[in-house]
Amino acid sequence: METTTLTVNGMTCGHCVSAVKEEIGSLPGVQGVEVDLVEGGDSPVTVTSDAPLGRPDLEAAVDEAGYTLV
Amino acid sequence: METTTLTVNGMTCGHCVSAVKEEIGSLPGVQGVEVDLVEGGDSPVTVTSDAPLGRPDLEAAVDEAGYTLV
Repeated sequence: METTTLTVNGMTCGHCVSAVKEEIGSLPGVQGVEVDLVEGGDSPVTVTSDAPLGRPDLEAAVDEAGYTLV
Repeated sequence: METTTLTVNGMTCGHCVSAVKEEIGSLPGVQGVEVDLVEGGDSPVTVTSDAPLGRPDLEAAVDEAGYTLV
């Protein structure tokens, strides 16, 4: 199992967290997504997956949710 | 048509606005819900409806969405 730690900017509430979890969680091989919400700031996000995840895929998923991968 | 102006506290983003619109919009007779988001503060909400709306119903809807009717 691989663990990837990201920083996502701009989430403000639990709905934002859900949107990010849903988008990252839909990437192939992702097993879990944990978000430590820092409201309106840089939030640490930990992703566990079967195989290493590519930055472009993660960036696209976070962008799709409406936020920015730092 | 009746117009009711409310103040809802605690919304921070568009997801919050959608949640409030959905809950208030599901009350009987509601035709439209407009939210002027004040992030993290007191946001004016305007509800149009066929008949006057009761405060307890509005309070319950806002509470269900996870916010506070001021």
